[in-house]
Amino acid sequence: MAQKILQGKEDIYRGITIWTERNPVTPAEAPEILKRSIEQWTAENVHGVWFKVVNKDAFWVTILIANGFEFHHAQAGYVMLTKWLPTNKTPTLPRYPFTSVGVGGVVMNSKEQFLLIKEKRGIYLGWKFPGGLADPNEDIFQTAKREIFEETGVETEFETVITMRHTTSISSYKNVGDMYFVCAMKPKDENKIEPKRCPRETSACQWMTLDEITNLPSWEFHRFNKSILDAYLHWKQSGRKGFHMDKFEIPELRRSWSVYTAD
Amino acid sequence: MAQKILQGKEDIYRGITIWTERNPVTPAEAPEILKRSIEQWTAENVHGVWFKVVNKDAFWVTILIANGFEFHHAQAGYVMLTKWLPTNKTPTLPRYPFTSVGVGGVVMNSKEQFLLIKEKRGIYLGWKFPGGLADPNEDIFQTAKREIFEETGVETEFETVITMRHTTSISSYKNVGDMYFVCAMKPKDENKIEPKRCPRETSACQWMTLDEITNLPSWEFHRFNKSILDAYLHWKQSGRKGFHMDKFEIPELRRSWSVYTAD
Repeated sequence: MAQKILQGKEDIYRGITIWTERNPVTPAEAPEILKRSIEQWTAENVHGVWFKVVNKDAFWVTILIANGFEFHHAQAGYVMLTKWLPTNKTPTLPRYPFTSVGVGGVVMNSKEQFLLIKEKRGIYLGWKFPGGLADPNEDIFQTAKREIFEETGVETEFETVITMRHTTSISSYKNVGDMYFVCAMKPKDENKIEPKRCPRETSACQWMTLDEITNLPSWEFHRFNKSILDAYLHWKQSGRKGFHMDKFEIPELRRSWSVYTAD
Repeated sequence: MAQKILQGKEDIYRGITIWTERNPVTPAEAPEILKRSIEQWTAENVHGVWFKVVNKDAFWVTILIANGFEFHHAQAGYVMLTKWLPTNKTPTLPRYPFTSVGVGGVVMNSKEQFLLIKEKRGIYLGWKFPGGLADPNEDIFQTAKREIFEETGVETEFETVITMRHTTSISSYKNVGDMYFVCAMKPKDENKIEPKRCPRETSACQWMTLDEITNLPSWEFHRFNKSILDAYLHWKQSGRKGFHMDKFEIPELRRSWSVYTAD
Protein backbone atom coordinates (compact mmCIF):
# COMPACT_ATOMS: atom_id res chain seq x y z
CA MET A 1 0.00 0.00 0.00
CA ALA A 2 1.22 3.48 -0.93
CA GLN A 3 1.33 6.31 1.62
CA LYS A 4 -2.44 6.75 1.65
CA ILE A 5 -3.83 10.05 2.99
CA LEU A 6 -7.51 10.66 3.82
CA GLN A 7 -9.16 12.78 1.13
CA GLY A 8 -11.62 15.50 2.06
CA LYS A 9 -13.10 18.85 1.18
CA GLU A 10 -11.43 22.11 2.19
CA ASP A 11 -13.39 25.18 3.31
CA ILE A 12 -12.69 28.94 3.45
CA TYR A 13 -11.82 28.76 7.17
CA ARG A 14 -8.75 26.50 6.58
CA GLY A 15 -10.87 23.51 7.59
CA ILE A 16 -11.12 20.09 6.00
CA THR A 17 -14.06 17.67 6.10
CA ILE A 18 -13.54 13.90 5.82
CA TRP A 19 -16.44 11.57 5.02
CA THR A 20 -15.68 7.97 6.02
CA GLU A 21 -17.88 6.63 3.18
CA ARG A 22 -15.58 8.28 0.61
CA ASN A 23 -12.45 6.89 2.28
CA PRO A 24 -12.83 3.10 2.52
CA VAL A 25 -10.27 1.91 5.05
CA THR A 26 -10.05 -1.23 7.18
CA PRO A 27 -10.12 -0.93 11.00
CA ALA A 28 -6.57 -2.37 11.04
CA GLU A 29 -5.03 0.22 8.73
CA ALA A 30 -7.09 3.21 9.98
CA PRO A 31 -4.85 4.37 12.89
CA GLU A 32 -1.73 4.58 10.69
CA ILE A 33 -3.55 6.41 7.85
CA LEU A 34 -5.06 8.85 10.35
CA LYS A 35 -1.63 9.55 11.87
CA ARG A 36 -0.07 10.26 8.45
CA SER A 37 -3.04 12.43 7.43
CA ILE A 38 -2.85 14.56 10.59
CA GLU A 39 0.90 15.05 10.01
CA GLN A 40 0.26 16.21 6.45
CA TRP A 41 -2.65 18.52 7.41
CA THR A 42 -0.55 20.06 10.21
CA ALA A 43 2.26 20.71 7.70
CA GLU A 44 -0.29 22.32 5.34
CA ASN A 45 -1.58 24.59 8.18
CA VAL A 46 -5.06 23.07 8.24
CA HIS A 47 -6.95 24.44 11.27
CA GLY A 48 -10.08 22.38 11.92
CA VAL A 49 -10.66 18.75 10.92
CA TRP A 50 -14.30 17.63 10.59
CA PHE A 51 -14.70 13.85 10.57
CA LYS A 52 -18.08 12.44 9.58
CA VAL A 53 -18.50 8.80 10.58
CA VAL A 54 -21.50 7.01 9.05
CA ASN A 55 -23.15 4.07 10.83
CA LYS A 56 -21.37 1.33 8.90
CA ASP A 57 -17.95 2.86 9.67
CA ALA A 58 -18.65 3.19 13.43
CA PHE A 59 -15.27 1.53 14.19
CA TRP A 60 -13.65 4.93 13.44
CA VAL A 61 -15.11 6.49 16.63
CA THR A 62 -12.80 4.70 19.07
CA ILE A 63 -9.78 5.47 16.90
CA LEU A 64 -10.66 9.16 16.56
CA ILE A 65 -11.31 9.62 20.30
CA ALA A 66 -7.95 7.95 21.03
CA ASN A 67 -6.35 10.53 18.71
CA GLY A 68 -7.77 13.58 20.46
CA PHE A 69 -10.93 14.09 18.39
CA GLU A 70 -14.05 15.29 20.19
CA PHE A 71 -17.76 14.71 19.50
CA HIS A 72 -19.33 17.72 17.73
CA HIS A 73 -22.85 16.53 16.87
CA ALA A 74 -24.82 13.55 15.57
CA GLN A 75 -27.94 12.94 13.55
CA ALA A 76 -29.58 9.69 12.50
CA GLY A 77 -27.05 8.04 10.18
CA TYR A 78 -23.82 9.66 11.32
CA VAL A 79 -21.74 11.23 14.07
CA MET A 80 -19.41 14.19 13.46
CA LEU A 81 -16.14 14.51 15.38
CA THR A 82 -13.71 17.42 15.23
CA LYS A 83 -10.09 18.17 16.04
CA TRP A 84 -8.45 21.61 16.10
CA LEU A 85 -4.86 21.28 14.89
CA PRO A 86 -3.06 24.62 15.55
CA THR A 87 -1.40 24.64 18.95
CA ASN A 88 -0.96 28.43 18.96
CA LYS A 89 -4.49 29.52 17.93
CA THR A 90 -7.80 29.50 19.81
CA PRO A 91 -10.33 27.04 18.33
CA THR A 92 -13.03 28.81 16.33
CA LEU A 93 -15.09 25.84 15.12
CA PRO A 94 -18.76 26.85 15.14
CA ARG A 95 -21.16 25.24 17.59
CA TYR A 96 -23.95 22.96 16.52
CA PRO A 97 -27.50 24.27 17.16
CA PHE A 98 -28.63 23.94 20.78
CA THR A 99 -32.03 25.63 20.74
CA SER A 100 -35.24 23.71 20.56
CA VAL A 101 -38.23 25.41 18.89
CA GLY A 102 -41.84 24.86 19.85
CA VAL A 103 -44.99 26.61 18.65
CA GLY A 104 -48.49 26.89 20.06
CA GLY A 105 -51.59 28.71 18.91
CA VAL A 106 -54.46 30.73 20.35
CA VAL A 107 -57.45 29.93 18.14
CA MET A 108 -60.60 32.04 18.53
CA ASN A 109 -63.73 31.23 16.54
CA SER A 110 -66.47 33.60 15.34
CA LYS A 111 -68.41 33.02 18.60
CA GLU A 112 -65.35 34.29 20.51
CA GLN A 113 -64.64 30.87 21.98
CA PHE A 114 -61.08 29.61 22.46
CA LEU A 115 -59.74 26.16 21.59
CA LEU A 116 -58.15 24.46 24.61
CA ILE A 117 -56.70 21.04 25.35
CA LYS A 118 -55.42 18.93 28.23
CA GLU A 119 -52.29 16.89 27.69
CA LYS A 120 -52.27 13.17 28.35
CA ARG A 121 -48.73 12.92 29.73
CA GLY A 122 -46.24 14.93 31.74
CA ILE A 123 -46.88 17.22 34.71
CA TYR A 124 -50.59 18.10 35.00
CA LEU A 125 -51.00 21.66 33.77
CA GLY A 126 -54.77 21.83 33.28
CA TRP A 127 -56.26 23.46 30.20
CA LYS A 128 -53.79 24.93 27.75
CA PHE A 129 -53.40 26.12 24.20
CA PRO A 130 -52.50 23.37 21.67
CA GLY A 131 -48.91 23.25 20.39
CA GLY A 132 -45.71 21.26 20.30
CA LEU A 133 -42.19 20.89 18.98
CA ALA A 134 -41.28 22.05 15.47
CA ASP A 135 -40.14 19.50 12.90
CA PRO A 136 -37.14 20.23 10.65
CA ASN A 137 -37.87 22.50 7.67
CA GLU A 138 -41.04 23.86 9.28
CA ASP A 139 -41.80 27.52 9.48
CA ILE A 140 -43.36 28.77 12.72
CA PHE A 141 -46.85 29.02 11.25
CA GLN A 142 -46.57 25.52 9.75
CA THR A 143 -45.77 24.02 13.16
CA ALA A 144 -48.72 25.87 14.70
CA LYS A 145 -51.11 24.58 12.00
CA ARG A 146 -49.81 21.01 12.22
CA GLU A 147 -49.79 20.78 16.01
CA ILE A 148 -53.26 22.33 16.38
CA PHE A 149 -54.60 19.94 13.77
CA GLU A 150 -52.92 16.89 15.35
CA GLU A 151 -54.17 17.72 18.84
CA THR A 152 -57.66 19.04 18.05
CA GLY A 153 -58.57 18.11 14.46
CA VAL A 154 -59.27 21.78 13.68
CA GLU A 155 -57.70 23.34 10.56
CA THR A 156 -56.40 26.87 11.10
CA GLU A 157 -54.67 29.79 9.43
CA PHE A 158 -51.84 31.94 10.73
CA GLU A 159 -52.40 35.55 11.76
CA THR A 160 -49.44 36.76 13.86
CA VAL A 161 -46.91 35.83 16.55
CA ILE A 162 -48.29 37.09 19.85
CA THR A 163 -45.54 36.12 22.20
CA MET A 164 -42.30 34.12 22.46
CA ARG A 165 -41.03 32.48 25.62
CA HIS A 166 -37.31 31.83 25.85
CA THR A 167 -35.63 29.50 28.35
CA THR A 168 -31.87 29.41 28.06
CA SER A 169 -31.46 26.15 29.93
CA ILE A 170 -33.83 23.22 30.01
CA SER A 171 -33.37 20.13 32.11
CA SER A 172 -33.40 17.45 29.37
CA TYR A 173 -29.86 18.13 28.14
CA LYS A 174 -26.90 20.22 29.24
CA ASN A 175 -26.36 23.60 27.48
CA VAL A 176 -29.63 23.42 25.57
CA GLY A 177 -32.29 26.14 25.36
CA ASP A 178 -35.88 26.38 24.24
CA MET A 179 -37.97 28.95 22.36
CA TYR A 180 -41.74 28.66 22.40
CA PHE A 181 -43.68 30.89 20.00
CA VAL A 182 -47.40 31.43 20.46
CA CYS A 183 -49.34 32.46 17.34
CA ALA A 184 -52.77 33.94 16.84
CA MET A 185 -54.60 31.53 14.55
CA LYS A 186 -58.11 31.48 13.13
CA PRO A 187 -60.26 28.55 11.89
CA LYS A 188 -59.81 27.87 8.20
CA ASP A 189 -63.53 27.12 7.89
CA GLU A 190 -65.92 28.23 10.65
CA ASN A 191 -68.29 25.40 9.66
CA LYS A 192 -65.66 22.73 10.38
CA ILE A 193 -64.50 23.39 13.90
CA GLU A 194 -65.79 20.37 15.81
CA PRO A 195 -62.84 19.28 18.02
CA LYS A 196 -61.57 15.71 17.61
CA ARG A 197 -59.00 15.07 20.29
CA CYS A 198 -55.88 13.07 19.52
CA PRO A 199 -56.14 9.83 21.57
CA ARG A 200 -52.33 9.56 21.80
CA GLU A 201 -51.52 13.09 22.97
CA THR A 202 -54.56 14.76 24.51
CA SER A 203 -57.00 13.74 27.23
CA ALA A 204 -59.51 16.51 26.47
CA CYS A 205 -60.19 19.18 23.89
CA GLN A 206 -62.96 21.81 23.68
CA TRP A 207 -64.01 25.38 22.88
CA MET A 208 -64.46 27.72 25.88
CA THR A 209 -65.71 31.27 26.18
CA LEU A 210 -63.61 33.95 27.87
CA ASP A 211 -65.98 33.81 30.86
CA GLU A 212 -65.57 30.06 31.19
CA ILE A 213 -61.79 30.38 31.05
CA THR A 214 -61.72 33.26 33.53
CA ASN A 215 -63.76 31.20 35.99
CA LEU A 216 -61.37 28.25 35.93
CA PRO A 217 -59.31 27.81 39.12
CA SER A 218 -55.62 28.72 38.77
CA TRP A 219 -54.46 25.07 38.68
CA GLU A 220 -56.79 24.45 35.71
CA PHE A 221 -55.57 27.50 33.77
CA HIS A 222 -52.05 28.53 34.70
CA ARG A 223 -50.77 32.09 35.00
CA PHE A 224 -48.63 31.78 31.91
CA ASN A 225 -51.61 30.76 29.78
CA LYS A 226 -53.54 33.68 31.26
CA SER A 227 -50.73 36.03 30.17
CA ILE A 228 -50.90 34.59 26.63
CA LEU A 229 -54.64 35.12 26.54
CA ASP A 230 -54.18 38.73 27.73
CA ALA A 231 -51.53 39.32 25.03
CA TYR A 232 -53.91 37.89 22.42
CA LEU A 233 -56.79 40.15 23.53
CA HIS A 234 -54.45 43.15 23.57
CA TRP A 235 -53.32 42.36 20.01
CA LYS A 236 -56.91 41.81 18.82
CA GLN A 237 -58.10 45.12 20.30
CA SER A 238 -55.16 47.10 18.94
CA GLY A 239 -56.11 46.38 15.32
CA ARG A 240 -52.39 46.18 14.50
CA LYS A 241 -50.50 43.40 12.78
CA GLY A 242 -48.32 42.55 15.79
CA PHE A 243 -45.09 40.57 15.24
CA HIS A 244 -46.21 39.61 11.76
CA MET A 245 -44.53 37.61 9.01
CA ASP A 246 -43.45 38.59 5.50
CA LYS A 247 -41.49 36.53 3.00
CA PHE A 248 -38.16 38.08 1.99
CA GLU A 249 -36.22 36.85 -1.03
CA ILE A 250 -32.81 37.74 -2.43
CA PRO A 251 -32.77 35.84 -5.74
CA GLU A 252 -29.15 36.77 -6.55
CA LEU A 253 -28.00 35.06 -3.33
CA ARG A 254 -30.59 32.25 -3.73
CA ARG A 255 -31.91 33.03 -0.28
CA SER A 256 -35.45 33.12 1.00
CA TRP A 257 -36.47 33.87 4.57
CA SER A 258 -39.53 34.40 6.70
CA VAL A 259 -39.10 37.77 8.35
CA TYR A 260 -41.08 38.67 11.47
CA THR A 261 -41.36 42.37 12.30
CA ALA A 262 -43.32 44.26 14.96
CA ASP A 263 -45.60 46.81 13.30
CA MET B 1 -20.08 -13.57 36.24
CA ALA B 2 -23.77 -13.42 37.16
CA GLN B 3 -26.45 -12.51 34.61
CA LYS B 4 -25.47 -8.83 34.57
CA ILE B 5 -28.04 -6.34 33.21
CA LEU B 6 -27.28 -2.69 32.37
CA GLN B 7 -28.64 -0.36 35.05
CA GLY B 8 -30.28 2.93 34.07
CA LYS B 9 -32.88 5.53 34.94
CA GLU B 10 -36.49 5.15 33.92
CA ASP B 11 -38.64 8.08 32.80
CA ILE B 12 -42.39 8.81 32.63
CA TYR B 13 -42.51 7.91 28.91
CA ARG B 14 -41.54 4.23 29.50
CA GLY B 15 -38.00 5.11 28.52
CA ILE B 16 -34.72 4.10 30.13
CA THR B 17 -31.39 5.96 30.03
CA ILE B 18 -28.09 4.11 30.34
CA TRP B 19 -24.86 5.94 31.13
CA THR B 20 -21.78 3.93 30.16
CA GLU B 21 -19.74 5.49 32.98
CA ARG B 22 -22.13 3.99 35.56
CA ASN B 23 -21.97 0.54 33.91
CA PRO B 24 -18.31 -0.47 33.68
CA VAL B 25 -18.12 -3.31 31.18
CA THR B 26 -15.26 -4.68 29.05
CA PRO B 27 -15.51 -4.54 25.24
CA ALA B 28 -15.47 -8.36 25.21
CA GLU B 29 -18.46 -8.82 27.53
CA ALA B 30 -20.46 -5.83 26.25
CA PRO B 31 -22.35 -7.52 23.34
CA GLU B 32 -23.72 -10.33 25.55
CA ILE B 33 -24.75 -7.95 28.37
CA LEU B 34 -26.47 -5.68 25.85
CA LYS B 35 -28.37 -8.60 24.34
CA ARG B 36 -29.60 -9.77 27.76
CA SER B 37 -30.54 -6.21 28.76
CA ILE B 38 -32.58 -5.64 25.58
CA GLU B 39 -34.41 -8.94 26.18
CA GLN B 40 -35.27 -7.91 29.72
CA TRP B 41 -36.35 -4.35 28.73
CA THR B 42 -38.54 -5.77 25.95
CA ALA B 43 -40.18 -8.14 28.46
CA GLU B 44 -40.75 -5.17 30.80
CA ASN B 45 -42.38 -3.16 27.96
CA VAL B 46 -39.70 -0.47 27.89
CA HIS B 47 -40.28 1.78 24.84
CA GLY B 48 -37.22 3.94 24.20
CA VAL B 49 -33.63 3.16 25.22
CA TRP B 50 -31.25 6.14 25.54
CA PHE B 51 -27.59 5.12 25.59
CA LYS B 52 -25.06 7.76 26.57
CA VAL B 53 -21.50 6.82 25.59
CA VAL B 54 -18.76 8.97 27.12
CA ASN B 55 -15.41 9.42 25.34
CA LYS B 56 -13.51 6.77 27.29
CA ASP B 57 -16.18 4.15 26.53
CA ALA B 58 -16.22 4.88 22.76
CA PHE B 59 -15.91 1.13 22.00
CA TRP B 60 -19.67 0.89 22.76
CA VAL B 61 -20.57 2.81 19.56
CA THR B 62 -19.73 -0.02 17.13
CA ILE B 63 -21.57 -2.55 19.31
CA LEU B 64 -24.68 -0.37 19.62
CA ILE B 65 -24.87 0.38 15.88
CA ALA B 66 -24.51 -3.35 15.18
CA ASN B 67 -27.51 -3.90 17.49
CA GLY B 68 -29.83 -1.46 15.72
CA PHE B 69 -29.17 1.65 17.78
CA GLU B 70 -29.14 5.00 15.95
CA PHE B 71 -27.24 8.24 16.65
CA HIS B 72 -29.47 10.81 18.39
CA HIS B 73 -27.09 13.67 19.23
CA ALA B 74 -23.60 14.41 20.54
CA GLN B 75 -21.90 17.12 22.55
CA ALA B 76 -18.27 17.47 23.62
CA GLY B 77 -17.68 14.51 25.95
CA TYR B 78 -20.38 12.08 24.81
CA VAL B 79 -22.57 10.70 22.06
CA MET B 80 -26.19 9.62 22.67
CA LEU B 81 -27.66 6.69 20.77
CA THR B 82 -31.26 5.49 20.92
CA LYS B 83 -33.28 2.40 20.10
CA TRP B 84 -37.07 2.11 20.03
CA LEU B 85 -38.08 -1.35 21.26
CA PRO B 86 -41.84 -1.81 20.57
CA THR B 87 -42.45 -3.36 17.18
CA ASN B 88 -46.14 -2.38 17.16
CA LYS B 89 -45.88 1.30 18.17
CA THR B 90 -44.64 4.37 16.27
CA PRO B 91 -41.43 5.82 17.75
CA THR B 92 -42.09 8.99 19.76
CA LEU B 93 -38.60 9.83 20.98
CA PRO B 94 -38.19 13.61 20.94
CA ARG B 95 -35.79 15.24 18.51
CA TYR B 96 -32.66 17.02 19.58
CA PRO B 97 -32.59 20.80 18.90
CA PHE B 98 -31.85 21.67 15.29
CA THR B 99 -32.22 25.46 15.27
CA SER B 100 -29.26 27.77 15.45
CA VAL B 101 -29.79 31.18 17.08
CA GLY B 102 -27.98 34.35 16.08
CA VAL B 103 -28.49 37.93 17.23
CA GLY B 104 -27.49 41.28 15.79
CA GLY B 105 -28.09 44.84 16.89
CA VAL B 106 -28.94 48.22 15.40
CA VAL B 107 -27.15 50.76 17.59
CA MET B 108 -27.98 54.45 17.15
CA ASN B 109 -26.14 57.11 19.14
CA SER B 110 -27.39 60.54 20.27
CA LYS B 111 -26.12 62.11 17.01
CA GLU B 112 -28.38 59.68 15.09
CA GLN B 113 -25.41 57.77 13.69
CA PHE B 114 -25.51 53.98 13.25
CA LEU B 115 -22.78 51.50 14.19
CA LEU B 116 -21.72 49.38 11.20
CA ILE B 117 -19.03 46.78 10.52
CA LYS B 118 -17.49 44.80 7.69
CA GLU B 119 -16.71 41.15 8.27
CA LYS B 120 -13.24 39.81 7.68
CA ARG B 121 -14.23 36.39 6.32
CA GLY B 122 -16.99 34.76 4.31
CA ILE B 123 -18.88 36.13 1.29
CA TYR B 124 -18.37 39.90 0.96
CA LEU B 125 -21.56 41.59 2.14
CA GLY B 126 -20.36 45.16 2.58
CA TRP B 127 -21.40 47.19 5.64
CA LYS B 128 -23.68 45.43 8.08
CA PHE B 129 -24.96 45.54 11.63
CA PRO B 130 -22.76 43.76 14.20
CA GLY B 131 -23.93 40.37 15.52
CA GLY B 132 -23.23 36.67 15.65
CA LEU B 133 -24.16 33.26 17.02
CA ALA B 134 -25.61 32.87 20.51
CA ASP B 135 -23.66 30.92 23.12
CA PRO B 136 -25.43 28.40 25.37
CA ASN B 137 -27.31 29.94 28.32
CA GLU B 138 -27.44 33.37 26.68
CA ASP B 139 -30.58 35.40 26.42
CA ILE B 140 -31.17 37.27 23.14
CA PHE B 141 -30.15 40.64 24.59
CA GLN B 142 -27.00 39.13 26.14
CA THR B 143 -25.86 37.82 22.76
CA ALA B 144 -26.53 41.21 21.17
CA LYS B 145 -24.49 43.01 23.87
CA ARG B 146 -21.62 40.52 23.71
CA GLU B 147 -21.36 40.37 19.92
CA ILE B 148 -21.57 44.16 19.49
CA PHE B 149 -18.89 44.61 22.14
CA GLU B 150 -16.62 41.92 20.62
CA GLU B 151 -16.91 43.33 17.10
CA THR B 152 -16.90 47.08 17.86
CA GLY B 153 -15.75 47.65 21.45
CA VAL B 154 -18.95 49.61 22.17
CA GLU B 155 -21.00 48.75 25.27
CA THR B 156 -24.74 48.78 24.69
CA GLU B 157 -28.13 48.25 26.34
CA PHE B 158 -31.12 46.36 25.03
CA GLU B 159 -34.28 48.15 23.93
CA THR B 160 -36.44 45.78 21.84
CA VAL B 161 -36.44 43.05 19.17
CA ILE B 162 -37.10 44.75 15.85
CA THR B 163 -37.15 41.80 13.53
CA MET B 164 -36.45 38.07 13.33
CA ARG B 165 -35.34 36.25 10.21
CA HIS B 166 -36.06 32.54 10.04
CA THR B 167 -34.46 30.11 7.58
CA THR B 168 -35.73 26.56 7.90
CA SER B 169 -32.81 25.00 6.07
CA ILE B 170 -29.22 26.16 6.02
CA SER B 171 -26.49 24.62 3.95
CA SER B 172 -24.02 23.71 6.72
CA TYR B 173 -25.94 20.67 7.96
CA LYS B 174 -28.95 18.65 6.86
CA ASN B 175 -32.31 19.37 8.59
CA VAL B 176 -30.98 22.36 10.48
CA GLY B 177 -32.55 25.82 10.64
CA ASP B 178 -31.49 29.27 11.73
CA MET B 179 -33.16 32.16 13.55
CA TYR B 180 -31.54 35.58 13.48
CA PHE B 181 -32.96 38.22 15.84
CA VAL B 182 -32.12 41.88 15.33
CA CYS B 183 -32.43 44.09 18.41
CA ALA B 184 -32.58 47.84 18.87
CA MET B 185 -29.69 48.72 21.19
CA LYS B 186 -28.41 52.00 22.60
CA PRO B 187 -24.94 52.97 23.83
CA LYS B 188 -24.48 52.37 27.56
CA ASP B 189 -22.47 55.58 27.85
CA GLU B 190 -22.63 58.19 25.06
CA ASN B 191 -19.13 59.39 26.05
CA LYS B 192 -17.58 55.99 25.41
CA ILE B 193 -18.57 55.07 21.88
CA GLU B 194 -15.26 55.19 20.00
CA PRO B 195 -15.28 52.02 17.83
CA LYS B 196 -12.41 49.55 18.30
CA ARG B 197 -12.70 46.88 15.64
CA CYS B 198 -11.95 43.26 16.48
CA PRO B 199 -8.82 42.33 14.47
CA ARG B 200 -9.89 38.67 14.27
CA GLU B 201 -13.48 39.15 13.06
CA THR B 202 -13.94 42.57 11.48
CA SER B 203 -12.07 44.44 8.75
CA ALA B 204 -13.79 47.79 9.44
CA CYS B 205 -16.09 49.40 11.99
CA GLN B 206 -17.56 52.93 12.14
CA TRP B 207 -20.51 55.21 12.87
CA MET B 208 -22.50 56.44 9.84
CA THR B 209 -25.36 58.86 9.47
CA LEU B 210 -28.60 57.85 7.76
CA ASP B 211 -27.58 59.97 4.75
CA GLU B 212 -24.21 58.25 4.46
CA ILE B 213 -25.88 54.81 4.63
CA THR B 214 -28.56 55.76 2.12
CA ASN B 215 -25.86 56.90 -0.32
CA LEU B 216 -23.97 53.59 -0.20
CA PRO B 217 -24.26 51.48 -3.37
CA SER B 218 -26.44 48.35 -3.00
CA TRP B 219 -23.43 45.97 -2.84
CA GLU B 220 -22.06 47.95 0.12
CA PHE B 221 -25.37 47.94 2.02
CA HIS B 222 -27.57 45.00 1.11
CA ARG B 223 -31.34 45.07 0.75
CA PHE B 224 -31.87 42.99 3.86
CA ASN B 225 -29.88 45.45 5.98
CA LYS B 226 -31.89 48.26 4.44
CA SER B 227 -35.11 46.50 5.51
CA ILE B 228 -33.76 46.18 9.07
CA LEU B 229 -32.91 49.88 9.13
CA ASP B 230 -36.43 50.73 7.90
CA ALA B 231 -37.96 48.51 10.59
CA TYR B 232 -35.80 50.26 13.21
CA LEU B 233 -36.86 53.73 12.05
CA HIS B 234 -40.51 52.61 11.97
CA TRP B 235 -40.22 51.32 15.55
CA LYS B 236 -38.44 54.50 16.72
CA GLN B 237 -41.07 56.76 15.18
CA SER B 238 -44.01 54.75 16.53
CA GLY B 239 -43.05 55.43 20.14
CA ARG B 240 -44.19 51.89 21.01
CA LYS B 241 -42.29 49.17 22.80
CA GLY B 242 -42.24 46.78 19.82
CA PHE B 243 -41.53 43.06 20.43
CA HIS B 244 -40.27 43.80 23.92
CA MET B 245 -39.04 41.57 26.71
CA ASP B 246 -40.35 40.96 30.21
CA LYS B 247 -39.16 38.42 32.75
CA PHE B 248 -41.79 35.90 33.79
CA GLU B 249 -41.37 33.71 36.84
CA ILE B 250 -43.43 30.87 38.28
CA PRO B 251 -41.71 30.22 41.61
CA GLU B 252 -43.86 27.16 42.44
CA LEU B 253 -42.64 25.42 39.27
CA ARG B 254 -39.11 26.84 39.68
CA ARG B 255 -39.33 28.31 36.20
CA SER B 256 -38.14 31.63 34.88
CA TRP B 257 -38.45 32.78 31.28
CA SER B 258 -37.84 35.80 29.10
CA VAL B 259 -41.13 36.57 27.42
CA TYR B 260 -41.23 38.69 24.26
CA THR B 261 -44.58 40.27 23.39
CA ALA B 262 -45.62 42.73 20.69
CA ASP B 263 -47.20 45.80 22.29
